[in-house]
Amino acid sequence: GMDGALTPASPAGLSAYVAVSQLLGLTLLATVGAWLGRYRGGVAWHSPLQFNVHPLCMVLGMVFLQGDALLVYRVFRHEAKRSTKALHALLHGLALVIALVGIVAVFESHRSQGIPDMYSLHSWCGMAAFVLYLLQWLLGCGFFLLPSASFSLRSRYKPQHVFFGVALFALSIASCLLGITEMLLFNIRDSYSRFVPEGVLANTLGVLLVAFGLVVGYVLTRDDWKRPLLAEELALSMDFKTLTEGESPCGGSQ
Amino acid sequence: GMDGALTPASPAGLSAYVAVSQLLGLTLLATVGAWLGRYRGGVAWHSPLQFNVHPLCMVLGMVFLQGDALLVYRVFRHEAKRSTKALHALLHGLALVIALVGIVAVFESHRSQGIPDMYSLHSWCGMAAFVLYLLQWLLGCGFFLLPSASFSLRSRYKPQHVFFGVALFALSIASCLLGITEMLLFNIRDSYSRFVPEGVLANTLGVLLVAFGLVVGYVLTRDDWKRPLLAEELALSMDFKTLTEGESPCGGSQ
Repeated sequence: GMDGALTPASPAGLSAYVAVSQLLGLTLLATVGAWLGRYRGGVAWHSPLQFNVHPLCMVLGMVFLQGDALLVYRVFRHEAKRSTKALHALLHGLALVIALVGIVAVFESHRSQGIPDMYSLHSWCGMAAFVLYLLQWLLGCGFFLLPSASFSLRSRYKPQHVFFGVALFALSIASCLLGITEMLLFNIRDSYSRFVPEGVLANTLGVLLVAFGLVVGYVLTRDDWKRPLLAEELALSMDFKTLTEGESPCGGSQ
Repeated sequence: GMDGALTPASPAGLSAYVAVSQLLGLTLLATVGAWLGRYRGGVAWHSPLQFNVHPLCMVLGMVFLQGDALLVYRVFRHEAKRSTKALHALLHGLALVIALVGIVAVFESHRSQGIPDMYSLHSWCGMAAFVLYLLQWLLGCGFFLLPSASFSLRSRYKPQHVFFGVALFALSIASCLLGITEMLLFNIRDSYSRFVPEGVLANTLGVLLVAFGLVVGYVLTRDDWKRPLLAEELALSMDFKTLTEGESPCGGSQ
């Protein structure tokens, strides 16, 4: 492992970007709270306000916690892989539970008001994001936490896991934007076009969601911020590259 | 350059994924056409149908052509870099022109009907996507097509260009999903929840947009499908890695 190697400090800039992401994430939650509290009567379970649990839980679970779960390998770049992995799984698990509460809230609220379920593009995208996110979590636990999965199997699944992780995070944010648009057109359809404060606040929430996604996505995909590979992973990825590209990664054949 | 090296065939799978992306892209355009033609009275410029030019142009320009422009470095993996670059810039330029026509259409249509502009989350996200896309195109031309930009400057800008390219593509698709939701809630608000054919067709268009984005994103980000680096680029990226990570990419220090 890396134990014997020098452990360099986190790259310049990474900490600043992570700090900005957390500031954006907290602003996000405050903005949802302000919207629901100030313009939508607040949040409660057994009441006509039950619907409002939905946007709160989805932004908290499917955006803020999901985003932070993706960041743990960058934030804890030099911690033991085992504990970072456990934290990654735990945060995603927490996100799933909170999202499930948010989904139950909207189904119960629809039932009590006689509104049909699952007819809108928001519901199709959101449900797809949730189901695939749950599936991704189960597969992740199976491949990376169960001791039975071989090292080479893990290495082959990992790129798929990373790609779908980022893609589902983007789909989750897109679903939130669709939900904001639906909620505004159902509640303030006529005044929305006059730039009333509720409309501007909800649009701002949408912009913050996009900004959070961009910053998290940038931190995740920046090459020189990736977690240093373990020696075994490095050797394997080079073998793989040599096999598929027909050239040495050290440029010897160039 | 690579001229003296063996030029291997495209990796297995890449062609299949590219074919699927093009099939999805054409289905996308057919679905927009079907929606506008069958349920929205068709498309025309100087008429009440001018609005319909907007969704057609935005899907064609900001999604289909933008996506295909992103794919050219994968599709033409072993062509001369110079001509691939020109095609990349040309397709993005065409996408921008078509998107501009779509934007003019919605502003003119709003003016003739007395509808305010730029109040919705769709308009905020869509306009941000278009303006940043134009900026990205100008920066791309400046850095990569003008002969004055140095090789090292290009290499430093390239990762930012790639990240924002994928991010703006995702934002463009999200803006289309928002536009679909707005259009449905404005036109068939009451029947949407009864699963009328227009609603299901428009939702399907949304799912196709997400699927196109996923397939293009997968092709773009898959490591072993990336265009082989030129020898100079390889040397530079290794120098950079050595400087920033403090370790040799050949694993010598592990």
